[in-house]
This record gives sequence, C-alpha cells and structure tokens, in this order.
Amino acid sequence: MSQKDLIYVGDKPVMKYVQAIITQIGEGAEEVSVKARGRAINRAADAAEIVRNRFLEKYDIREIKTGTERWYE
Amino acid sequence: MSQKDLIYVGDKPVMKYVQAIITQIGEGAEEVSVKARGRAINRAADAAEIVRNRFLEKYDIREIKTGTERWYE
Repeated sequence: MSQKDLIYVGDKPVMKYVQAIITQIGEGAEEVSVKARGRAINRAADAAEIVRNRFLEKYDIREIKTGTERWYE
Repeated sequence: MSQKDLIYVGDKPVMKYVQAIITQIGEGAEEVSVKARGRAINRAADAAEIVRNRFLEKYDIREIKTGTERWYE
C-alpha cells in the first residue's frame, strides 16, 4: 500500500475525507486505509460508511483495527 | 449473547464503560459486545483499548463492525 492510499482523518469536515477516499479509488487504488486517533475515530467511521453507502456501493470495509500508542515509554 | 453482555456507550465518562465491561467478564461473560453511535464511537474504542491494555491483557478485540441505520425510510 503506497503512502498515497493512506488517509489520516483529523478535524476537517467529514466530506473532505469522503472526497479523499473517492479520489484515491478513482486513481486506481484497490484499497484505501483510513486512520484516525481519539475524537477523529468516529469521523473516520462516518467517512467510510458514507463512501460505502452513498458513493461506492460495491466497495466494503475489509477490516477495522484499533490500537494504543504509548508516547511515554 | 445475553442482553447483559451488550454495553451501549453514551456520554458518560469512559471509565464507567471500562467498569461495565470488566464487571460483565467478572460475572462470567466470555464475550462482551460494546456498541456506540456517532460521537460515542471513539469512547467505545477507548474503553475497549483501556480494558485490553490495562486490565484484562489476555482478552482481545475479536471483531469490529460499523453500520448505518436509516431512520427516514
């Protein structure tokens, strides 16, 4: 997966990320990874659901993983 | 899965949900399902990660699913 197919979700409006996902797929990406931390997690979930339900119905969510990064060790 | 092993995450402090998960497992639940909508999604992710990393390290997240409910049809 190239760096291009990796979308980090921050605090922009959700449709920005929907647009980014659709653009990556439009440019030939077979798979797009959407990553978020903390409060942006639900925005990442929203973006994926909006893409899957409204724009690219033949696409699906392959896998969802959560993790914890320790910055204090 | 009994209704008991289903935890709905709302807007209470995350540790309330951590406590609820640990209690279910302490009472013998082999699996606990944590559900959330919208902004509470990241709190559900937090609760599961806190339980798995700080309290019940031998437990893991089996599966994460997202979905969309249409209330206007």
